[in-house]
Amino acid sequence: MNKGLLVVVSAPSGCGKDTVVSKILDIMKEDAFLSVSMTTRQMRPGETDGVNYHFISAEEFNRNILEGEMLEYAQYGDNFYGTPISPVKKNLEEGKTVFLIIEVEGGGNVKKIFPEAKKIFIIPPSLEVLESRLRGRATDSDEAIRARLRIAETELQRAYEYDYIVENDVLDNAVSDVMSIIRAEQLRINNMQNKLREVINNA
Amino acid sequence: MNKGLLVVVSAPSGCGKDTVVSKILDIMKEDAFLSVSMTTRQMRPGETDGVNYHFISAEEFNRNILEGEMLEYAQYGDNFYGTPISPVKKNLEEGKTVFLIIEVEGGGNVKKIFPEAKKIFIIPPSLEVLESRLRGRATDSDEAIRARLRIAETELQRAYEYDYIVENDVLDNAVSDVMSIIRAEQLRINNMQNKLREVINNA
Repeated sequence: MNKGLLVVVSAPSGCGKDTVVSKILDIMKEDAFLSVSMTTRQMRPGETDGVNYHFISAEEFNRNILEGEMLEYAQYGDNFYGTPISPVKKNLEEGKTVFLIIEVEGGGNVKKIFPEAKKIFIIPPSLEVLESRLRGRATDSDEAIRARLRIAETELQRAYEYDYIVENDVLDNAVSDVMSIIRAEQLRINNMQNKLREVINNA
Repeated sequence: MNKGLLVVVSAPSGCGKDTVVSKILDIMKEDAFLSVSMTTRQMRPGETDGVNYHFISAEEFNRNILEGEMLEYAQYGDNFYGTPISPVKKNLEEGKTVFLIIEVEGGGNVKKIFPEAKKIFIIPPSLEVLESRLRGRATDSDEAIRARLRIAETELQRAYEYDYIVENDVLDNAVSDVMSIIRAEQLRINNMQNKLREVINNA
């Protein structure tokens, strides 16, 4: 069996990365696995341990770092967020497509440990559209929205470090584009060697 | 506008490369262009000049080679077959996906002139299936079929030089796989720089 494909998905806030990946998980079902991050922050009402995050103590988080179990991690405010390596490795070994939804900052480290990972950056059709989407959420103050937009502008500059760019204008098109990327990667010669050998050797 | 994508498609005889490409041309319509080869062989009943081949004289063929107008060419028996460069360049400039259906032998040269070309090798599910397809055509003698199968075995070894492998088991799946490859290539960062700049600069 072929090893699975590791897919890193990043995007500025409000570009719909969680929705796109969740739609793809619905399509791929048991062929896909979404990595669940570890965090030291408090669980919020409605969240489930092991689903939204693995909620762990700062001590446990540190131990994971020291044991080389963190693929990448970052600090936001007083809280730490990180991606444990073991479930990623296990699911790749089982041939699954493993998704990591990672902040633009953290995405750079993944290729040091998994050089074969493919990185997808989701962009909005324009910053105007992104702004109106953020305002549509109506959860943030005007000031918070302007801060998010400034961060988005900075993060978009990092898109050049990614392998693929997917525009999320119409959600279904963005989902279909990511599915095309995954299928194309599966068809690359390095992932098709087993199949090729099978055809040649059964001669 | 982005330059178009150049796609080389090769396969052993009987693997359905012409059918797959023809289905894709139907889907992509004016976004795609199939390169028509030049040949020095006689036109056969039912063939149309400029559709099946550009039928030209040996002198004209030689002149094209000398003028650097042949992307690749090969001799089969007494006849020459080759791919003219100009229509490929013109259609790439217009942003079209340009398909070259090329013998396994000739595929290697294309990347010297177009390093960004992507090469797809179509394989049969197995050599048994290929054999039964060749027999199903009922156009060849038993000896000719065995010769084709031996050539197919040799050609399959060259599949390792290609970027992508597509298995043609169910035709629609093979067509969908090639479409995924084309879409994924369009989404690569080097082909998305214009779009990315547009979003960043309209800030």
